Amino acid sequence: MNEQQTDFLIVGAGFAGIAAAKKLHSQNCNFLIAEARDRIGGRTLTQTFEGEIVLDLGAKWLGPTQQLVWEWVHQTGAETYSTYNSGRNILSYKGKISHYTGVIPKINALSLLDLGLAMNRLEKLAATVNLQQPWQHPQALHYDAMTLHTWIRQNTWTNAARHLLEIGIQTVFAAESSEISLLFALFYLHSGDSLQTLISIANGAQQTILKEGTQGLLKKVAAPFANRIRLSTPVHKIVQDETGVQAHTSKGIIRARKCILTVPPALMERIRFEPLLPQQKAQLFQRMPMGAAMKCYAIYPSPFWRQQGLSGQVISDEFPVKVTFDVGHTDQDYGKMLVFVEGNDARYFISLPAEKRKEMVLTKLVRFFGKQAASPIVYTDKCWTEEEWTRGCYVGLMPPNTLAHLGQHLRTPFGNIHFAGTETAERWNGYLDGAIRSGYRAAEEAIQAARSNMSS
Amino acid sequence: MNEQQTDFLIVGAGFAGIAAAKKLHSQNCNFLIAEARDRIGGRTLTQTFEGEIVLDLGAKWLGPTQQLVWEWVHQTGAETYSTYNSGRNILSYKGKISHYTGVIPKINALSLLDLGLAMNRLEKLAATVNLQQPWQHPQALHYDAMTLHTWIRQNTWTNAARHLLEIGIQTVFAAESSEISLLFALFYLHSGDSLQTLISIANGAQQTILKEGTQGLLKKVAAPFANRIRLSTPVHKIVQDETGVQAHTSKGIIRARKCILTVPPALMERIRFEPLLPQQKAQLFQRMPMGAAMKCYAIYPSPFWRQQGLSGQVISDEFPVKVTFDVGHTDQDYGKMLVFVEGNDARYFISLPAEKRKEMVLTKLVRFFGKQAASPIVYTDKCWTEEEWTRGCYVGLMPPNTLAHLGQHLRTPFGNIHFAGTETAERWNGYLDGAIRSGYRAAEEAIQAARSNMSS
Repeated sequence: MNEQQTDFLIVGAGFAGIAAAKKLHSQNCNFLIAEARDRIGGRTLTQTFEGEIVLDLGAKWLGPTQQLVWEWVHQTGAETYSTYNSGRNILSYKGKISHYTGVIPKINALSLLDLGLAMNRLEKLAATVNLQQPWQHPQALHYDAMTLHTWIRQNTWTNAARHLLEIGIQTVFAAESSEISLLFALFYLHSGDSLQTLISIANGAQQTILKEGTQGLLKKVAAPFANRIRLSTPVHKIVQDETGVQAHTSKGIIRARKCILTVPPALMERIRFEPLLPQQKAQLFQRMPMGAAMKCYAIYPSPFWRQQGLSGQVISDEFPVKVTFDVGHTDQDYGKMLVFVEGNDARYFISLPAEKRKEMVLTKLVRFFGKQAASPIVYTDKCWTEEEWTRGCYVGLMPPNTLAHLGQHLRTPFGNIHFAGTETAERWNGYLDGAIRSGYRAAEEAIQAARSNMSS
Repeated sequence: MNEQQTDFLIVGAGFAGIAAAKKLHSQNCNFLIAEARDRIGGRTLTQTFEGEIVLDLGAKWLGPTQQLVWEWVHQTGAETYSTYNSGRNILSYKGKISHYTGVIPKINALSLLDLGLAMNRLEKLAATVNLQQPWQHPQALHYDAMTLHTWIRQNTWTNAARHLLEIGIQTVFAAESSEISLLFALFYLHSGDSLQTLISIANGAQQTILKEGTQGLLKKVAAPFANRIRLSTPVHKIVQDETGVQAHTSKGIIRARKCILTVPPALMERIRFEPLLPQQKAQLFQRMPMGAAMKCYAIYPSPFWRQQGLSGQVISDEFPVKVTFDVGHTDQDYGKMLVFVEGNDARYFISLPAEKRKEMVLTKLVRFFGKQAASPIVYTDKCWTEEEWTRGCYVGLMPPNTLAHLGQHLRTPFGNIHFAGTETAERWNGYLDGAIRSGYRAAEEAIQAARSNMSS
């Protein structure tokens, strides 16, 4: 059987794995990357339609305080543009369509007050959660014993505020507020600056788009060490002793002194570990299910809604089109309408036949933007729950009683194995920037550990 | 490579797998069982100490309405005895020890009223949940959006009642009330008759003990087809097409027309499926983490506490000994003190050194039962989170937003693959009886499907 030897083995060639590799490469370390898919990118996937329409079917945006991903943009000279954010937004609520500008939809004054107060309270709470050790919060046990949904019910009194807040939460987490603990939600919001940042375009997490897509950026970063990446090479067993690890892959054995795993927590135990993963880590990984996210695109010859003074942004309570964005570039470019379907909606929607899905999305887009929306050049959608090597998106979530009791076991190394992936990030957890941070951190850890092994 | 052919392949030789095999055997079907462990029994494990002290380190008891497991007892002539249940019980709460008789501890009248009312309310709610389709409950979405912990906080007003109810819940679920949704908890309680049944010895789920242990019973049932069981044979891949399945095991390929999987949901995706598991099933399985349960035994020359008029039963708020039972037989038998450690306690307790654990348990037992408790003949403990092929116990749990939205995908067959395991049971979910029911049901499904394939 084919056998290879290296110093550092990285499992996974997404943003975390490539970041770890970049760090190792910069320090002239000897490494290999084993990637299960036949491509790099992990939860990013950029595809070109009609020869020139570049679409991100996975992670898409960059935001202002995401310093590490911006460093990559500047280093590689990747071109970016700002998400279109002019004109009136659409709110569709209880069958009525209204237009508004800014982040907060036009609802009655009482509901607006209610929404504002609840968001403000949530922001303030989130700011009190320490990002390194969220389980140290004085109220950690209490906040981790309830769902975010329970908190929202206790802290809003109008249906409209509740409804809009829930839609915002779905878009941020690719999950229902009932799936996650309040403590985890607070940590996650704080990790990405604030709820306001996470739901915003201007100065927010949806601010900037990469012309060649997020996977395009990663390819540029990985180019100097592309020869170290083994594609279509899932790791199915890792045996370790004091001297290092032995990874059994579909294409033979790779021996290394240290291993960096970037696999999402929910998929970690697909690898058989000898010795076994510590029980607290194993129980933690069982308790971090993946969210469910779909991106649906309808592409038109031009962004015709802009001429009508519309931003292309919709917030609605009408399944399946609850949130949309105009992600095209200039007015002369194609019209690129992006529809999000999240959480329970996503799992149900993707189970419908493809033609039905297209029809349902276009029917709603016609309702919001007029007849021109009926005939896109391209319609495509993707649900990440169907992807074998992530089985969901954006991120591994934490239900109640997870972060407070088991969160401390997330990043701890296990012998010669170090753990990366955006789920392990303190800052920008769940985002590309968090993935990069986690890769750098794990690589530094592994280099340090290898050095202290040698000197001992 | 070694290749075998059969009609029905059962994966897992626990109670569910052996029940499926028994059904197939009774209908003269051709089948094989692939078991990952080097033993049968799954979450049952009976070990003998000092040559004659038989202890169940996993599932232990039988209760009154568990008809199917009782059928096995009668068919095999397995001997049973009743759990000792005479004398005074001990309550240790806030540093004070008191004695009481019956199921409900002696606390002040107000707390007692509070506890009684809350339990009564919980029982009534549970009775309204349909066992076949719990997601059809008119309040399903509401009950599935909160944790059981939230419900307990909203429905009790004294700390003592809350505390005692939480200890009861921990013992029933091997989990915290904050880990499970209210809807799942209600379903589970109803599935095992009622909370009262599940926490009781008399007429309850802790009523009867098997002399040769639960694994001993299973060995007897499996004896007629023991030659069909392949031990130490984990299945790591299942490829299927219209004609059947091809299971890749550590010892070669097994081809079959139908497959019955009895693997706990949390471990299901360790098997690589081609084609992939449907996405809703996969997301469901990510959302069914295993509980954490430990059994600790201190064995004495005789049950000396009985002479003091004590039942050997303790309810306490003192980590790690919160619940104990006397599981010995006659007064002339060894004294067998069983201590439960559950949920967060279990994950933490097992991470301590073995000597420390023994010391901590014995210190508490001395406090409750006197100096004689300091010197057991045998002390042993086992935490199921450390077992590679279950990674927790008793059962796969459901956090919020799981049962209402994804529960309907639990039992649905996937092509030629049928799903069993106690987690799929409608009655006695999580118990041995539920495992047997699930095995029978899946075997009947598979036989039916094979017949209709042949006639079509």
